[in-house]
Amino acid sequence: MTRKTVLLLSGGLDSATTLAIAISQGYEVYAMSFAYGQRHNHELLSAARIASQYGAKEHRVFTIDLGGFGGSALTADIAVPKDREEKTMGEGIPVTYVPARNTVFLSFALAWAEVLKAYDIFIGVNALDYSGYPDCRPEFIQSFEQTANLATAYGVEGKQRIRIHTPLISLTKAEIIRHGLALGMNYALTTSCYDPTPEGKACGHCDACQLRLKGFRENAMPDPASYA
Amino acid sequence: MTRKTVLLLSGGLDSATTLAIAISQGYEVYAMSFAYGQRHNHELLSAARIASQYGAKEHRVFTIDLGGFGGSALTADIAVPKDREEKTMGEGIPVTYVPARNTVFLSFALAWAEVLKAYDIFIGVNALDYSGYPDCRPEFIQSFEQTANLATAYGVEGKQRIRIHTPLISLTKAEIIRHGLALGMNYALTTSCYDPTPEGKACGHCDACQLRLKGFRENAMPDPASYA
Repeated sequence: MTRKTVLLLSGGLDSATTLAIAISQGYEVYAMSFAYGQRHNHELLSAARIASQYGAKEHRVFTIDLGGFGGSALTADIAVPKDREEKTMGEGIPVTYVPARNTVFLSFALAWAEVLKAYDIFIGVNALDYSGYPDCRPEFIQSFEQTANLATAYGVEGKQRIRIHTPLISLTKAEIIRHGLALGMNYALTTSCYDPTPEGKACGHCDACQLRLKGFRENAMPDPASYA
Repeated sequence: MTRKTVLLLSGGLDSATTLAIAISQGYEVYAMSFAYGQRHNHELLSAARIASQYGAKEHRVFTIDLGGFGGSALTADIAVPKDREEKTMGEGIPVTYVPARNTVFLSFALAWAEVLKAYDIFIGVNALDYSGYPDCRPEFIQSFEQTANLATAYGVEGKQRIRIHTPLISLTKAEIIRHGLALGMNYALTTSCYDPTPEGKACGHCDACQLRLKGFRENAMPDPASYA
């Protein structure tokens, strides 16, 4: 029997690769994106294209109100940092951090999983390149998995465990790209930039663009995304 | 300095009592309700009235898409059970259970707390009367608290811990009511019914009504709520 999985799909490079991995492992993928008050919706358009092209069974966009909290450069009127040196990126919590984002996203994934009777959740978090985000660390994921099992009917019935899959958690950006290319991923479809132009071209200077460009450089190939 | 707290306020008897407790302990309360696809919005109107009357600093209603998942009698077109015997209520997971509801609600509370720089979250869960809900159990709350501390900037800075307060967790309904009355709570303002009339009158027969009526009976007083 095909196993169902809920997969968090932002439309960026990491979650697209995670989708390709889940599909390659034979999962029936229910992809989930969020309109959470992002300053742009190019990544949601990318998510829809990727879900359809790589064979997700279903793709839903949930509108939630995280932007209303403020507190992040990705949702509020705070400048996205540009051209930072890589060593600076890992220091402290970046202003692009969205409060409790992965906790909220994983909670929704859990709700959908419970309704679908799915026991697996995929999330493309990566601890290496984004060490500044507290909710990308393995200890957070492990703790959420434990909470998820206590939170749900599964936890009471105790028959089957919820598992949070994080296939990218210890990979470098270059390794993620290599992995995705081997699975046939077309990275031109993905959107990573924190601050794209109105037409959806990447800025090339924010942390996300820089990490991505470096990843392609280390694979000695050009990034197929469209840059301003 | 007054400590800020985020408090989940449904408009029911339990969360109203929790608000009175938090206020009596000197907290500055940011009350949070959700429009999550409930079949009726009487409880949101009750929440607004209670927040204003009992001195919450702010009350916000967040619209989220839990109803879209289906799977519960509180959001989907499944009949609310009526006139069940009390011993049956504790058996298994009730059809009124909303998938991962408290995980989703607490995640939002955590996001707001982080933006407000609050370290305390109050939730009126009760393990005694609703033993069927997995996400009302103390072990779930403890696990969520641990996850919350790993999820957020606090977890990285390690200066101050998030605490999830559950002052009602081991009280009976009768004890909760006694506690609230001592703090001046007017329970006519609260809405507990799972299936009220269009005018907002309680049905008197669902599990929530029955538990509540029994609680007042054990205090030898009438329930001031309006019944159909």
